[in-house]
Amino acid sequence: MAQEVDKRILDIAESIKEMKIRGAGTIARAAAEALKIAAETFKGKDYREFMNYFDYVADLILKTRPTAVSLPNAIRMIKRPVYKKVCETTDLEEIKGTVASAVNKFIEESKKAINTIAEIGSRRIKPGNIILTHCHSRTALSVITTAHKKFIKENKEGLRVIATETRPRFQGLITAKSLADEGIPVTLIVDSAVRSFIEEADLVIVGADAIAANGAIVNKIGTSLVALAANEARVRVYVAAETIKFSPETLVGALVEIEERPATEVVDEKFLKKNPLIKVRNPAFDVTPPEYIDLIITEKGVFSPQVAAIILKDELGWSLQEYTKCY
Amino acid sequence: MAQEVDKRILDIAESIKEMKIRGAGTIARAAAEALKIAAETFKGKDYREFMNYFDYVADLILKTRPTAVSLPNAIRMIKRPVYKKVCETTDLEEIKGTVASAVNKFIEESKKAINTIAEIGSRRIKPGNIILTHCHSRTALSVITTAHKKFIKENKEGLRVIATETRPRFQGLITAKSLADEGIPVTLIVDSAVRSFIEEADLVIVGADAIAANGAIVNKIGTSLVALAANEARVRVYVAAETIKFSPETLVGALVEIEERPATEVVDEKFLKKNPLIKVRNPAFDVTPPEYIDLIITEKGVFSPQVAAIILKDELGWSLQEYTKCY
Amino acid sequence: MAQEVDKRILDIAESIKEMKIRGAGTIARAAAEALKIAAETFKGKDYREFMNYFDYVADLILKTRPTAVSLPNAIRMIKRPVYKKVCETTDLEEIKGTVASAVNKFIEESKKAINTIAEIGSRRIKPGNIILTHCHSRTALSVITTAHKKFIKENKEGLRVIATETRPRFQGLITAKSLADEGIPVTLIVDSAVRSFIEEADLVIVGADAIAANGAIVNKIGTSLVALAANEARVRVYVAAETIKFSPETLVGALVEIEERPATEVVDEKFLKKNPLIKVRNPAFDVTPPEYIDLIITEKGVFSPQVAAIILKDELGWSLQEYTKCY
Amino acid sequence: MAQEVDKRILDIAESIKEMKIRGAGTIARAAAEALKIAAETFKGKDYREFMNYFDYVADLILKTRPTAVSLPNAIRMIKRPVYKKVCETTDLEEIKGTVASAVNKFIEESKKAINTIAEIGSRRIKPGNIILTHCHSRTALSVITTAHKKFIKENKEGLRVIATETRPRFQGLITAKSLADEGIPVTLIVDSAVRSFIEEADLVIVGADAIAANGAIVNKIGTSLVALAANEARVRVYVAAETIKFSPETLVGALVEIEERPATEVVDEKFLKKNPLIKVRNPAFDVTPPEYIDLIITEKGVFSPQVAAIILKDELGWSLQEYTKCY
Amino acid sequence: MAQEVDKRILDIAESIKEMKIRGAGTIARAAAEALKIAAETFKGKDYREFMNYFDYVADLILKTRPTAVSLPNAIRMIKRPVYKKVCETTDLEEIKGTVASAVNKFIEESKKAINTIAEIGSRRIKPGNIILTHCHSRTALSVITTAHKKFIKENKEGLRVIATETRPRFQGLITAKSLADEGIPVTLIVDSAVRSFIEEADLVIVGADAIAANGAIVNKIGTSLVALAANEARVRVYVAAETIKFSPETLVGALVEIEERPATEVVDEKFLKKNPLIKVRNPAFDVTPPEYIDLIITEKGVFSPQVAAIILKDELGWSLQEYTKCY
Amino acid sequence: MAQEVDKRILDIAESIKEMKIRGAGTIARAAAEALKIAAETFKGKDYREFMNYFDYVADLILKTRPTAVSLPNAIRMIKRPVYKKVCETTDLEEIKGTVASAVNKFIEESKKAINTIAEIGSRRIKPGNIILTHCHSRTALSVITTAHKKFIKENKEGLRVIATETRPRFQGLITAKSLADEGIPVTLIVDSAVRSFIEEADLVIVGADAIAANGAIVNKIGTSLVALAANEARVRVYVAAETIKFSPETLVGALVEIEERPATEVVDEKFLKKNPLIKVRNPAFDVTPPEYIDLIITEKGVFSPQVAAIILKDELGWSLQEYTKCY
Repeated sequence: MAQEVDKRILDIAESIKEMKIRGAGTIARAAAEALKIAAETFKGKDYREFMNYFDYVADLILKTRPTAVSLPNAIRMIKRPVYKKVCETTDLEEIKGTVASAVNKFIEESKKAINTIAEIGSRRIKPGNIILTHCHSRTALSVITTAHKKFIKENKEGLRVIATETRPRFQGLITAKSLADEGIPVTLIVDSAVRSFIEEADLVIVGADAIAANGAIVNKIGTSLVALAANEARVRVYVAAETIKFSPETLVGALVEIEERPATEVVDEKFLKKNPLIKVRNPAFDVTPPEYIDLIITEKGVFSPQVAAIILKDELGWSLQEYTKCY
Repeated sequence: MAQEVDKRILDIAESIKEMKIRGAGTIARAAAEALKIAAETFKGKDYREFMNYFDYVADLILKTRPTAVSLPNAIRMIKRPVYKKVCETTDLEEIKGTVASAVNKFIEESKKAINTIAEIGSRRIKPGNIILTHCHSRTALSVITTAHKKFIKENKEGLRVIATETRPRFQGLITAKSLADEGIPVTLIVDSAVRSFIEEADLVIVGADAIAANGAIVNKIGTSLVALAANEARVRVYVAAETIKFSPETLVGALVEIEERPATEVVDEKFLKKNPLIKVRNPAFDVTPPEYIDLIITEKGVFSPQVAAIILKDELGWSLQEYTKCY
Repeated sequence: MAQEVDKRILDIAESIKEMKIRGAGTIARAAAEALKIAAETFKGKDYREFMNYFDYVADLILKTRPTAVSLPNAIRMIKRPVYKKVCETTDLEEIKGTVASAVNKFIEESKKAINTIAEIGSRRIKPGNIILTHCHSRTALSVITTAHKKFIKENKEGLRVIATETRPRFQGLITAKSLADEGIPVTLIVDSAVRSFIEEADLVIVGADAIAANGAIVNKIGTSLVALAANEARVRVYVAAETIKFSPETLVGALVEIEERPATEVVDEKFLKKNPLIKVRNPAFDVTPPEYIDLIITEKGVFSPQVAAIILKDELGWSLQEYTKCY
Repeated sequence: MAQEVDKRILDIAESIKEMKIRGAGTIARAAAEALKIAAETFKGKDYREFMNYFDYVADLILKTRPTAVSLPNAIRMIKRPVYKKVCETTDLEEIKGTVASAVNKFIEESKKAINTIAEIGSRRIKPGNIILTHCHSRTALSVITTAHKKFIKENKEGLRVIATETRPRFQGLITAKSLADEGIPVTLIVDSAVRSFIEEADLVIVGADAIAANGAIVNKIGTSLVALAANEARVRVYVAAETIKFSPETLVGALVEIEERPATEVVDEKFLKKNPLIKVRNPAFDVTPPEYIDLIITEKGVFSPQVAAIILKDELGWSLQEYTKCY
Repeated sequence: MAQEVDKRILDIAESIKEMKIRGAGTIARAAAEALKIAAETFKGKDYREFMNYFDYVADLILKTRPTAVSLPNAIRMIKRPVYKKVCETTDLEEIKGTVASAVNKFIEESKKAINTIAEIGSRRIKPGNIILTHCHSRTALSVITTAHKKFIKENKEGLRVIATETRPRFQGLITAKSLADEGIPVTLIVDSAVRSFIEEADLVIVGADAIAANGAIVNKIGTSLVALAANEARVRVYVAAETIKFSPETLVGALVEIEERPATEVVDEKFLKKNPLIKVRNPAFDVTPPEYIDLIITEKGVFSPQVAAIILKDELGWSLQEYTKCY
Repeated sequence: MAQEVDKRILDIAESIKEMKIRGAGTIARAAAEALKIAAETFKGKDYREFMNYFDYVADLILKTRPTAVSLPNAIRMIKRPVYKKVCETTDLEEIKGTVASAVNKFIEESKKAINTIAEIGSRRIKPGNIILTHCHSRTALSVITTAHKKFIKENKEGLRVIATETRPRFQGLITAKSLADEGIPVTLIVDSAVRSFIEEADLVIVGADAIAANGAIVNKIGTSLVALAANEARVRVYVAAETIKFSPETLVGALVEIEERPATEVVDEKFLKKNPLIKVRNPAFDVTPPEYIDLIITEKGVFSPQVAAIILKDELGWSLQEYTKCY
């Protein structure tokens, strides 16, 4: 590369990789932000050079979490108007402006999506409900806190949440803290206690990392076990997810790749060295089949998971054809 | 008490309480051992005094883990001949001798029971099988290692084990190490990954802390979730347990009490203080319904869990009537 | 109000409230009729005054059964062209004419819908079939009687019906009489005998009061129990319902409200007064999850319940945005 | 018959037939009572004549409810010592005395059985539990009220009950009143609302009219539907029943006959006459398969339903061979 | 008919009837081919005469397998442009040309469809997978062999297949041979051994003869049993089928007719004559409910079976209205 | 061997091996018969020589079908009194007499067992019932024909049977013929059509080759699939089996070995040679889990499968200890 990649971009990439930036929406917006920074900090004069740099940064970001579906979706949604602009003009400033405005629009809509989901989802909750959640999903939490605040304001009974600790990275503790900070009482349990507490819950609400064409949900390891236990106890399971989590590639057969995280998230190096016959498997996600999910709450409305393919086609209009490059 | 309780007894009590002594059989044998030490170290001369001391020690041990069914069963099985002897004689030495021999017999049979279970259970395993286990059960492990060694000796394919880490106390790591030490390759996973790995398994083998009259299994928190996932995937679930784990009280309606362990096993004190709205629930066990268990392997043979009440009546013959005291 | 509400309108409102007018289609058509009467009997001269009266009557009707989804759908479908007309003209007669024609069109289509459903649904039935039904749904009955008449005409074996009495209001007796009047032999059973008779049935056909975006069916209390028992016995469940029963509000998260009817439908006043510790709960409807329903038969074709949200969007095109008022 | 049957006996027979005497235990004790009255009021002098009268009365009682398993069991348990006595002596007074003492013993044990069941069953209930029950079973109610009183006495939270009205004879209203009289708050619902309320319940407790060798429970129509709904929602189902309800005939293949009650319990004569094409089916009972029952609570302890055949053989010792007659 | 039907057409008709031509796609293309032959060999001069001959041949072909949904779909897709052309011109040659080009286009797209499905479907398979299949479906086989060849080319582990023999016509042997010819190791089993081998399988892939509006799959007898066993063992079931297999008639209620094949496919004539009380039932297909199918792989993408009705409407656009005839 | 084995014995051995002698009871009786022939045709004078010959013949018979549990059970039941006799006497004639009488007694009881089962089982069937059966089990057939004849004699509606052909050896044709010969109408279907016909059936009745301690049934391949389909459709499954089919070895963990039969039962040699990549797997039996079986009908009464271990212990009293040899 003619130009060194800006440190802020590298920080974003690193943070995504290290899971300091978590949550598919947040990742998507951070990725978009990185592209804007690339445009803002590009030092060259040539639009072709810029586009190479732009593509380089996009790739760099993409590789940080190859399994986070929102990442390629975000980059695709920004690339599309930019590539189109390059076919119309060679004015670098104009192109950079297109990057900025595409990023801004994407981020705005992404943020608005969560609010809409929170609003829609909160209507499915009743005062006094006990909600069980797994891992840390901003979308799921925004549904819960929106409902809770509404009930408190209306002088009705607030909510209570049962949160799993979510091994190996304990994201459930972040969830518990966020909810407690909003005044919601939280019961924290180990992941394997889900079957002992599910009958106390009125609802399960979780987020999603990716949604496949057949409505299967890819989410934090353990989600499918929570859904299975909820299903056994006739407790409804809601998935709160922006449509950006729907994976267009699955429509033509692709499997959502399940990221395998380092063994050291589970045990320390010493343990591994001492016990060569012990291998750690640490998949970050699992797949919940559509029959265990009652509803997907998106910013476009609520749906049965089975219609995911139709939503992909009708609502998102994401073409699977690659866009033409004019450089 | 006229006499201070011997330090070794206190150590045993403490170790049971702190779960350094784990596994229902081990606890039972340790409890029995404590009663023998009581007899050996008693400094008085009067048999009544001794019996008071003996009862005091028995109670002290009983209280350490009120929910471990093998604990009262063990103490009951030693108390019975001792109480009977006291009705026959007032000779302190003779009584102490009865304690010692009752303890020795109990320990011997308890140890033999595991070997018999290992032998019986190993016949249900085939070379090359992959076994999933949860927590750390010596009885379950002895079945696995006995089968593995037999296959290796016969020049057949050995076994492989998938072990859960078993939060909050990580007993799964002990399991993994024990098996690896026997030359068995182990795959270690977080508890919530069970549904992702269950299809690789040919069998689930777990132990039990208590078995109720209707065949429900009380075992380490998460066991029922493992059994649920196994059942969903048509993987058979075997419970390896000495008949001493059958709870006679459940025959007349008693519920097996589920011990609640300290919150600090899950999060640290600081976290709890900082977040007063977050409450930790930490039950040590859960209840697996009989329909998720294919077989209970005992030293008396293999059974469907549903016949537990009959086994209790026919095989154990434990009367629920209290024994007469002659002091 | 400047003008007293016409007695026929009040009668309609009362009849809907008292459930003398039953069946979502009938309610919808009666509500539409009431709006036509309002237009016909309005005594004033001013179009604004009329519109206030029109809105007043619409509200009055709406409140009679707040949970009957066809009621707001009907009123909405009539309001739309009327409001639009008011934006175009202030001629009172023209506006009143629009009310009449909108009502006529709505009633005609509503009636035709049932015939189309009867025709489509009858193709799913075979000569000699035994159909189990619950409550009294004109749409469901028209499917059954259409098939029966067709078979009789073709000299094939007719149908037989098993009808539940449908507590607390015994609508099943009306169902039984209607079918018997068409020459169809009926077996009448108490509601709780459904599991004893479901295996004799080839099919379950019921109506619906409302269909949610995820395909859940809101229908007379007991429907979900019938569907559960049918599912256990591998008997298919068909729901016959006009698309007017699809609830657009559920698409953005609204829950279909379950009407709670008076305790005196279940026991008499005397019983209640004598037993203050006994509380009667009398929800009029329950919710059948989509997985227990094989097919929804609508006038637009047959569908899996899971695609309800897509039908709502594609077929009905009901915007959730409120229409502009020009007065 | 040489002697007219005493009016009190006829009253008992009539009351059993008309279901004024309800509940298998009550029926059994009433039947026993009738035999005692027969002995007390016999006017003849000849023991053979008495035995004929005794047999006549026994038959008369037996025919009132041919499907109530406790009825033949009761009569058999009284006949056995009487027949044996006749083989030993021809002294009429002695024989009559044997009748009286056999009846007294049977009644005493039958009453004690309910108390023991109440005591055992109450241990499976926790303070604050919500119990759902169906129909009116004294055994089930005694479990509930015993637990409730115990909790109130211990200053713990009492119980709440959800009771179905139990068509067609509304026995649920009697249940509701009995419980309310004991200070237990009751929610009364129609039978078909069970699926809407089952998730509020912690337990289902019902009685049984008969228990088959494979653990199937014959009880009031609707019980199997309640059990099915409970099973779907992971709510445990307990059956409280004296061992006298176990049907020895089922061990050698007999099916428990399901009594069909008059159509007029469901609709009135006029309705039936007016609608000849409508037939009413009114089976009094249904069969709940063992897999939907968690526990049978008997006076001998708690059991899985699957072991019913073993209980029959081991605990009851009822020979299927007929006893020898010496007259 | 003025003209004798060409022998090649009769051969095609015979071969379809005798099931020498098998597989819905093959049948459809053969039917189309027959229409082309009709155009090529027509000896007359008059376009009306030709159209009568054309319709006659179409009907003749249609009647050979009235239940093969692809047959009427194919004929309809060729009839449509031909009928349209007749309304525009009376030039026989031009009309014949339209037949030829419509047939060619149909065949080309039909063949391409299988390749696209193979490509899409192969992405759902992983190296080393064991696939269970039933009967002989070219579409399903093309998915399997495409994946296998790809893995071999990439030096990855190839696939293994478990094939059922598929009574009564043993199409599974053809399947086994085709796969073995591609170098894929096959395990051949009798149909009833499916439950013993399903746990070895990673996936089930089958074809479809017809797909109904609610996603039910009509395929070779036994398919629903395979799917049931797969579902019990948590093994995913994929259906590979061109959209031409979607049955538009089912959208308006039609049931897919299940062809009953001759008894002599099962036993010989002699057996039947000797045993007049033995009747053979030999349905060629069964119906697999959508809940046992994870995915339908079509040339338009992958879908949940539940959205079949939407695919029918959106993707196929097949009007149910009959086309106008201009002759 | 000093003496050549009698041809009739070799014929029996051959017939068992070749499955000309089929059905566990028949095999057991044939095996017993062979031992009697050995005694009858022994030409020597020395009892030790005889015993060696006796053991040799027993072994020879045992090896013909190592997986038929009734074979070792039969031989064990005859060996026991013979071995005992040898400890008492050395008189050859007396020993030979013991063989004969032990064989006669065994055969008599074995035959009587089927009649008792037929009598008990027939009580569970109602006039007009449709029974589905799989393979050819004399015990199951005797239940069916006994019930049918009883109904015909009582002028009630007879039975109808649905029989599977039972690949690969078509035993279902023998079943169909036997039943038709008794005047029972039979519908013959291919094995994979079971799910299409199960809803017509009121009951499934099958035999068993072996019953394991946990109630699992080992029977002809396909039985577990029939049971699975019956369970899905709420059709009850009865297993008719003499207690001789209960496997004592399973009580101490042994797995019932599943016999693998020659590939040529499925395809011919030529096919196998031509297709080296095609391997045939042909297990003769499969294992039906106890949860799919409602009842085991034995000559001792009917039981839930779960209590098999208790039956083994209580009723059979078969010691697992080997008997002492005195020669």
